Amino acid sequence: MTDLASHDTIRAVSYNDGVLRLLDQRRLPFEEVYLDCRDAGAVATAIKDLAVRGAPAIGIAAAFGVVLEARRLAQAGSPVTVDTLDAALRHLNAARPTAVNLAWALQRMRAVAAQKPDDPVRTLTEAALAIQADDLAANRHMGELGAQLLGDGVGVLTHCNTGSLATAGYGTALGVVRAGVTAGQIKRVFAGETRPWQQGARLTMWELSRDGIPATLIADSAAAHLMKSGDVQWVIVGADRIVANGDTANKIGTYQLAISARHHGVKFMVVAPASTVDMSMPDGAHIEIELRDSAELLSHGGKRSVVEGAQAWNPVFDVTPAELIDAIVTERGVIEHPNAEKMRAMFGAAV
Amino acid sequence: MTDLASHDTIRAVSYNDGVLRLLDQRRLPFEEVYLDCRDAGAVATAIKDLAVRGAPAIGIAAAFGVVLEARRLAQAGSPVTVDTLDAALRHLNAARPTAVNLAWALQRMRAVAAQKPDDPVRTLTEAALAIQADDLAANRHMGELGAQLLGDGVGVLTHCNTGSLATAGYGTALGVVRAGVTAGQIKRVFAGETRPWQQGARLTMWELSRDGIPATLIADSAAAHLMKSGDVQWVIVGADRIVANGDTANKIGTYQLAISARHHGVKFMVVAPASTVDMSMPDGAHIEIELRDSAELLSHGGKRSVVEGAQAWNPVFDVTPAELIDAIVTERGVIEHPNAEKMRAMFGAAV
Repeated sequence: MTDLASHDTIRAVSYNDGVLRLLDQRRLPFEEVYLDCRDAGAVATAIKDLAVRGAPAIGIAAAFGVVLEARRLAQAGSPVTVDTLDAALRHLNAARPTAVNLAWALQRMRAVAAQKPDDPVRTLTEAALAIQADDLAANRHMGELGAQLLGDGVGVLTHCNTGSLATAGYGTALGVVRAGVTAGQIKRVFAGETRPWQQGARLTMWELSRDGIPATLIADSAAAHLMKSGDVQWVIVGADRIVANGDTANKIGTYQLAISARHHGVKFMVVAPASTVDMSMPDGAHIEIELRDSAELLSHGGKRSVVEGAQAWNPVFDVTPAELIDAIVTERGVIEHPNAEKMRAMFGAAV
Repeated sequence: MTDLASHDTIRAVSYNDGVLRLLDQRRLPFEEVYLDCRDAGAVATAIKDLAVRGAPAIGIAAAFGVVLEARRLAQAGSPVTVDTLDAALRHLNAARPTAVNLAWALQRMRAVAAQKPDDPVRTLTEAALAIQADDLAANRHMGELGAQLLGDGVGVLTHCNTGSLATAGYGTALGVVRAGVTAGQIKRVFAGETRPWQQGARLTMWELSRDGIPATLIADSAAAHLMKSGDVQWVIVGADRIVANGDTANKIGTYQLAISARHHGVKFMVVAPASTVDMSMPDGAHIEIELRDSAELLSHGGKRSVVEGAQAWNPVFDVTPAELIDAIVTERGVIEHPNAEKMRAMFGAAV
């Protein structure tokens, strides 16, 4: 059995005594550089500029951003209240629009502050640490639940990075991969490189390599050709927002993988904590899709690679409709063939 | 109406008096560097290393490679025959496996030599020039035929580079785009960047920019999301080999586009000269798919970008089954909803 202990040493987000330390994911896989954030503004910038990314990790980082603001207020002798925290909460919330975990974590921190605790800094710190601990526990549990669906001797294709780097640890889709490898069910993992930011190539391949999991990188364009070869039985991805009917926003290219998977009879699994579920939106048409700078497509390694004056369209998420999803796995359980009724039964009117 | 004269100045392959001059496509779009080949070995290397690429351009370059070998033999006082040319013909043919135009052009040159012409160097030179001239004429004609299918006010998505750089001039799929733009039928062209070699980003965007055609670059992964937006009515691609039932090998990612196009009711057109048709193969399962060095995925700009020790799978073509193709356009005419019977009616038992 593969020894998967090494991923436990990856700490994308760690907090200690007024310093939020982020593993700068822009520099991986060749430089393990840490970025120390000492105020909420620095955290918002780190989220916006992708030093930290992955929906759950963004939520955790933002929660600690609120802690840093609470400390700043307390040190300045200001009261720490929902009102005084409000500007920082809004600033953090605006850093990225698509992942709902960010808004969810900030809402949870706001609710803690609204209870007017005796020692708001300590109580907010405990709340942020709990968000982080809950995420890790959720990932472990989702890993078990997802692996139960896989079958034996399977090949898995994943997209973007959903591992320890994207979460509090272990991972969502990559957590299912880790659980499936540990149980001996997975023969090989294929990772799409995930243009334009190469999360698959740079981050997922790095995590899988550290764990000794047999992995093969492919161009995103090669996914359908790979499915036709018969070497893949499951596509497993994370999510940035799952809405009330099961429609799922995730990294650009996920929708295309789901269409190709259905075409080939390959199964499609979404793995995300319940904090990714947004029951306030009826369907995927309502999800705001983040458009990032066209420079991400027009340059390579900071150097222009496309003719001057060229335009590019750079949506970094897309929406996969529920009908193309075979299973949604959260720590609350598995929903097969998701629809509004099954989602409501598990998540109620709102999460 | 857009002035499209500028593409006439692009000469990917030009021959003059013992020198085959290739526009080195590895250096575009920022450096227009020409590579002068003076013997067949240099031509084979240029094909293998992608200094020249695009199925029709490869065929033309290889034909001139035979001319260079014929000149070498004649200058050395050796006879120029099928037998003495054989080693060079085989060497050129082995440079790349998937595009049939290469084998087709060499077969045509071999047949010319087999007729034992009085002045073999002159006759072979004329034959190579005819292959080049015929390709340009075919592209112009295919442009007209393809544009007739488009309708008005359409958006077009294309993949890889199929323009002047990939042909004797004007282009195959990009020829249809040029004809459609000239006729005012096309609102906007979208180009997939075409990982790993970025032919779309580097070459197609450059060609479209020179012609002043409104164009937008997308990540290959964004194609399905784009189709869902309703901004694209046609996917138009070239081909490296079209076999007897209409199955078509083309740049990796084409198959995935065809699946997504069908899912969205977007039409899918293949444009290629008749020299791309290989009636000797019954279906796409017989086509050899070129696997290139994994370094193309593991590095960026010569610099390693993925963790050391990582594996990558780098098939550079895939096969789109005929049932996903709405129209195949060659200079002989249009086949809608291709199948073996329609292909046989247009191309006979073998091309």
